[in-house]
Amino acid sequence: MNNRLQQFQAQFDALRIDAFLVTDTVNKQYLTGFDGDGVILVTADQIYVITDSRYETALKRTDHDFKVIITRYYLEAAAQQIERQHITVLGFEDSIPFHEYDRIDELMSSDIVPMTNLIEQMRELKSNEEVQILEHACQMTVKGFKTLLPLIKPGVTERYLANRLDAIMRDLGAEKASFDTIVASGKRAALPHGAATAKQVQTGELITIDFGYYFEGYTSDMTRTVALGDPGEKLRQVYGIVQQAQQAIIDAVKPGVSGQQLDEVGRDLISAAGYGPYFNHGTGHGIGLDIHEGPALSTRSDDQMMASNVITAEPGIYLPDLGGIRIEDDILVTKTGHRILTAGPTDLISL
Amino acid sequence: MNNRLQQFQAQFDALRIDAFLVTDTVNKQYLTGFDGDGVILVTADQIYVITDSRYETALKRTDHDFKVIITRYYLEAAAQQIERQHITVLGFEDSIPFHEYDRIDELMSSDIVPMTNLIEQMRELKSNEEVQILEHACQMTVKGFKTLLPLIKPGVTERYLANRLDAIMRDLGAEKASFDTIVASGKRAALPHGAATAKQVQTGELITIDFGYYFEGYTSDMTRTVALGDPGEKLRQVYGIVQQAQQAIIDAVKPGVSGQQLDEVGRDLISAAGYGPYFNHGTGHGIGLDIHEGPALSTRSDDQMMASNVITAEPGIYLPDLGGIRIEDDILVTKTGHRILTAGPTDLISL
Repeated sequence: MNNRLQQFQAQFDALRIDAFLVTDTVNKQYLTGFDGDGVILVTADQIYVITDSRYETALKRTDHDFKVIITRYYLEAAAQQIERQHITVLGFEDSIPFHEYDRIDELMSSDIVPMTNLIEQMRELKSNEEVQILEHACQMTVKGFKTLLPLIKPGVTERYLANRLDAIMRDLGAEKASFDTIVASGKRAALPHGAATAKQVQTGELITIDFGYYFEGYTSDMTRTVALGDPGEKLRQVYGIVQQAQQAIIDAVKPGVSGQQLDEVGRDLISAAGYGPYFNHGTGHGIGLDIHEGPALSTRSDDQMMASNVITAEPGIYLPDLGGIRIEDDILVTKTGHRILTAGPTDLISL
Repeated sequence: MNNRLQQFQAQFDALRIDAFLVTDTVNKQYLTGFDGDGVILVTADQIYVITDSRYETALKRTDHDFKVIITRYYLEAAAQQIERQHITVLGFEDSIPFHEYDRIDELMSSDIVPMTNLIEQMRELKSNEEVQILEHACQMTVKGFKTLLPLIKPGVTERYLANRLDAIMRDLGAEKASFDTIVASGKRAALPHGAATAKQVQTGELITIDFGYYFEGYTSDMTRTVALGDPGEKLRQVYGIVQQAQQAIIDAVKPGVSGQQLDEVGRDLISAAGYGPYFNHGTGHGIGLDIHEGPALSTRSDDQMMASNVITAEPGIYLPDLGGIRIEDDILVTKTGHRILTAGPTDLISL
């Protein structure tokens, strides 16, 4: 924790700022462990957690090396410190809502400078401890999915399967789902983001299940498409293309390769097979404290993979009125290449 | 749906804008039913849903009276329409992230004007249909809580109870929890926002359970504090004070009363009993498509209650190292007064 704050403060000179205002909840959590309402002011030699009395008791009981300011006027209290300490340039997160920017602009005696993804970039490089937690989350997620498989039978609803998987994962120790678990069957699977509905799954359908769960604050993200009975020649063939594309993307993961290059690897394969227009989303993204972090794997990404990134690889093909297929694993970028954290087979499972 | 858009467009003249850019997800959903990524541009006589190809199939299948623009460059597409249609003043939501504001400022040929809570204010007044959905959500939530009660036994963990309640609610048709269900027992209940942990509940403790669930897109929000065995004279007495305060707040709900007045009613009672400093949060808030909407019930709120608002009343007292109590119901403001939607007894339940 302490290390992160010191590492952050060490960047201030190069950024030409005297202090930085942290407003993003996940970034607050990353730097200090505190994720309640309020703001965090980081100066060159001090950290102030500025929050209200609802959190006073909880903050008293935590060992920490920051000062706590209890007030209902977060930004005013930050402005007071900035004036007292003669801070001349304050960085702020450009993810802040416009109306808060407007108030900061009004309140602060210092210059204010918007900054993009400063703490987010630190978060992209996972520590060994973070990797261990993520690996555990991924292993439990694979285990949960395997436990769900026998429950997939003709006539049960998509929502039933989503609810069962959530319950299984909680029994395995998950804190919560990181998004509404997606179960999309048959023609509905042509909607890449189709939430689970009351639709019953039927023999002959493909079922796409996309799910992620938090363990100790870090989330997994995984997708499998399974067949109930025989989905037919065409869908089996398309499944093979997605599987091949996903494997090619994973094989290409190593430090130095760009998010755009990784996207191309899979997209080229899918396009060559004639399905380019039906792969209509990005190839992957980082995961960690948040379900969507950097680096990005997409046609427009200039992010470079670095050792200690944890990313998803999730190509898909979606055929309107027929069905859809997506396969997603979580991958650690290592010094020499990569390691799959959600290790488990990707061959089409027929139930 | 149509009505909402027309009602919104009808305000443009008074607001001195030609068009409005909707970026908030819940507001997008409220106006058009579309809640995917992208932006919505509302002009005086047209609505453009600007989103990417992931949503193309879903949008083709919906009956709607807006135009769909498929692109990966949402803001650029909006800028193009604004230039083509010679729009001179564009309103935007001041909840937008600063970096998006920055791009709008750069891209738009029109003047841009930040606006506060424009659509949020429309959302505060619920239609009859919305009230019916909310009432159903509240009734199911009361039912779920009653089903949970027999499971509260010494030795079970807070997390077990949270997970069981979530499962019960899903069986009753809930789409999802609107926040991480709070179960805080014994001393932990002194943390108003203590998430459920692995702590076991014990005889002699008070247990505060705070929960809300979505049905058809609208959420309930309810809290009960129950006793396992006898919590002792002091906590029983404090429970009575919170119950009395909550009842007084509810009794005072009617059109015209302000959020500040409602807050005072409960806070005065609690302060008179000597526990003022231990009621360290607001009294309530609106609910609807979002778990926190207007109007606000708090010491600083100048919101006036209006018929068709749906609000919470949730005073609490939190005693460090001893325990905490909160009681919360959902209330519809009617023309003549109010109606409790989570109707159910608030007397202390001893298990």
